[in-house]
Amino acid sequence: MSIDYKAKSWIQVPENSDFPIQNIPFGVFVKGESQPHIATRIGDTVIDLFAVSEGGVFTDMSIDNRVFNKSFLNDFIALGKEKTNAVRQRIAEIFDIKNTDREKWQTALLPVKDVQMLMPVKVGDYTDFYSSIDHATNVGKMFRDPENALLPNWKHIPVGYHGRASSIVVSGTNIHRPKGQILPKGETQPIFSPSRLMDFELEVAFVTGKKTALGDSIPTNEAEDYIFGLTLFNDLSARDIQKWEYVPLGPFLGKNFGSVVSPWIVTLEALEPFRTEGYKQDPEVLDYLKYSGKRNFDINLEVYLQPENAEPTRICQSNFKYMYWNMAQQLAHQTVNGCNINVGDVYASGTISGPEKDSFGSMLELSWAGQKEIKLKNGDTRKFIQDNDTIIIKGYGKKDGVRIGFGACVTKILPAK
Amino acid sequence: MSIDYKAKSWIQVPENSDFPIQNIPFGVFVKGESQPHIATRIGDTVIDLFAVSEGGVFTDMSIDNRVFNKSFLNDFIALGKEKTNAVRQRIAEIFDIKNTDREKWQTALLPVKDVQMLMPVKVGDYTDFYSSIDHATNVGKMFRDPENALLPNWKHIPVGYHGRASSIVVSGTNIHRPKGQILPKGETQPIFSPSRLMDFELEVAFVTGKKTALGDSIPTNEAEDYIFGLTLFNDLSARDIQKWEYVPLGPFLGKNFGSVVSPWIVTLEALEPFRTEGYKQDPEVLDYLKYSGKRNFDINLEVYLQPENAEPTRICQSNFKYMYWNMAQQLAHQTVNGCNINVGDVYASGTISGPEKDSFGSMLELSWAGQKEIKLKNGDTRKFIQDNDTIIIKGYGKKDGVRIGFGACVTKILPAK
Repeated sequence: MSIDYKAKSWIQVPENSDFPIQNIPFGVFVKGESQPHIATRIGDTVIDLFAVSEGGVFTDMSIDNRVFNKSFLNDFIALGKEKTNAVRQRIAEIFDIKNTDREKWQTALLPVKDVQMLMPVKVGDYTDFYSSIDHATNVGKMFRDPENALLPNWKHIPVGYHGRASSIVVSGTNIHRPKGQILPKGETQPIFSPSRLMDFELEVAFVTGKKTALGDSIPTNEAEDYIFGLTLFNDLSARDIQKWEYVPLGPFLGKNFGSVVSPWIVTLEALEPFRTEGYKQDPEVLDYLKYSGKRNFDINLEVYLQPENAEPTRICQSNFKYMYWNMAQQLAHQTVNGCNINVGDVYASGTISGPEKDSFGSMLELSWAGQKEIKLKNGDTRKFIQDNDTIIIKGYGKKDGVRIGFGACVTKILPAK
Repeated sequence: MSIDYKAKSWIQVPENSDFPIQNIPFGVFVKGESQPHIATRIGDTVIDLFAVSEGGVFTDMSIDNRVFNKSFLNDFIALGKEKTNAVRQRIAEIFDIKNTDREKWQTALLPVKDVQMLMPVKVGDYTDFYSSIDHATNVGKMFRDPENALLPNWKHIPVGYHGRASSIVVSGTNIHRPKGQILPKGETQPIFSPSRLMDFELEVAFVTGKKTALGDSIPTNEAEDYIFGLTLFNDLSARDIQKWEYVPLGPFLGKNFGSVVSPWIVTLEALEPFRTEGYKQDPEVLDYLKYSGKRNFDINLEVYLQPENAEPTRICQSNFKYMYWNMAQQLAHQTVNGCNINVGDVYASGTISGPEKDSFGSMLELSWAGQKEIKLKNGDTRKFIQDNDTIIIKGYGKKDGVRIGFGACVTKILPAK
């Protein structure tokens, strides 16, 4: 359920904030030495939901307050959409400008600059899909056959692979450039070296909110019931490590040194206004992947590269609507063989590139495998990420004057250890 | 630390039992409606360690009894090897035949047939390696070039990929034949069908007992400090689903419908007597993969196939010593880029085939991609697993009259749902 589009909050919301009263995302914060709590955010104010809950405002929903006094959202999410949406609705009432009973909530409010946001969920399993047709086509053109860029299975299967859950970290976590085996051009023996081809991948991830039993499958038309919400996702990639290792079993050390999520999980319900059609799927997909309705989302995505002590340059403008395979299809595919899912699993989209050259979602594509230079505002150029560069991903939908976004997903790449 | 090889227990140990007093593995059991507890096993007797702990026998080790009153071993394992080995040693003293103080332990003893063994650990992340040279060579011969069976990276990298943690289940869990996309021979359009090429993979997995921070690496000569113990592992594989989906990002739905572990984690210390040399690695490996000492283990491995209402036929005899890449190298590789590990991660070996035809660790290899029939005792033949077949994996080391084993890893394949 979306919150009234005319509503305003008595908490100040700066222009172009990702967090109007219509968003009400969920995250986990800590302040100083205190315990982590579950929170939401309006404007630049973090709202401590454990503090709010102590006023008894969720008691009629049969929610145990302790679910807000946690280090992860998993137990809260596991309450189910009926309850988590009721919490969103109650928050919208309490902080609506029409509500004059404001004083008692002041102790629950914290400036966002005074808190540290933590990893929102304890990730069970993590899957990374490969669902952008423009991205898959670009990769195929660069490394295989420009005339047959897509592999034979690509339009039949939402191709995906399992990634490493342990190394998914929250925005603001800096990551050291990984070391590993790379095969220098023209050589036959690998060397051990810090990666020379560090890249980001612009992705959006969804977090599941409901579990299934081993052996069960989720139909596409029920899949969204299992999706709690979305985050931005930076699937950092060491292209040289990946290239040498990935045949025949897929990416491993080229990816698992760190992936970064934005700290607020924006609910699927908050994103309802941005539903849109996806690409036409041709050839026709198998029955278990057929779907009805609008399952793509018109969410603007941007990537900025910020060199040390310089201002950021926007190097990519893409959109979540460019997904060929939508989230419902991905989850139906993930479970069609009986694979079980849990609350807190993360399913990332794969790099989201659009059809235009400035919409490509990785430096591999933007620099066309290092053949072109990406120009930055300070006069620098890049083909891949340099040490101490910061990658900033932003994402938001906008409709009827309301902007609902994710906040930034920020990572600085430190030199190799 | 190994337990005295001359020791005997006052608990009866049948001939050829995997569980003499020198083993003392760890697992989790439940009896009827009661709470799961941590246990060990001698002969056919399960020893409830929570019940044992209530006698105060671990108090001097500063172990909180509650660590035995759990559904998973993770918290116990996280105590560290010093404590977990001290527990093994104390158990060995209590149940040694020289100990005449026996009556008070009777309430902790249960016949194994009266309890249900549960999944021993809550799995964080799961990696599957591909470390048997005979297996990789067989696959290369069948599907690529018999003259150049190994891919260029294989002798440089302990190739691995991330698998699905959620669908790892304990021995005795039956698995439905998965459905999915397959591309029939000669066709260009996939169909949706139950897998027609169901297979097992004979593997051994290790479970980590110590965590690292993101960015840290584990050197080979320290890697075994991070390995708590081993289980047998059946990496069930739907070959037709795998074949159509795996390019370019690796196995996904062909594997993640279920993998099976034996219920007892046998500690690395219990397996000390079976250390042996591995294959000579040529070409020389990069420095971070070099190791000293004996890092392979001489553990006999067997696979039995049992049709419905018939006796089992042994279809494979292999050995864990056939690993080209050892566990220390695998863990060093997994973390060389800074990937972090946690207590309870599972790292499987990949199919363990030996050089002989009857030592191949999968039906794919035993039937040479369906070209040969595997004969069973009841007159049946198989190329792949049929519905209602049960796959039984066994494993044990034997030295100086002492046999230390894993118990069986058993899975029945049920018809597709």
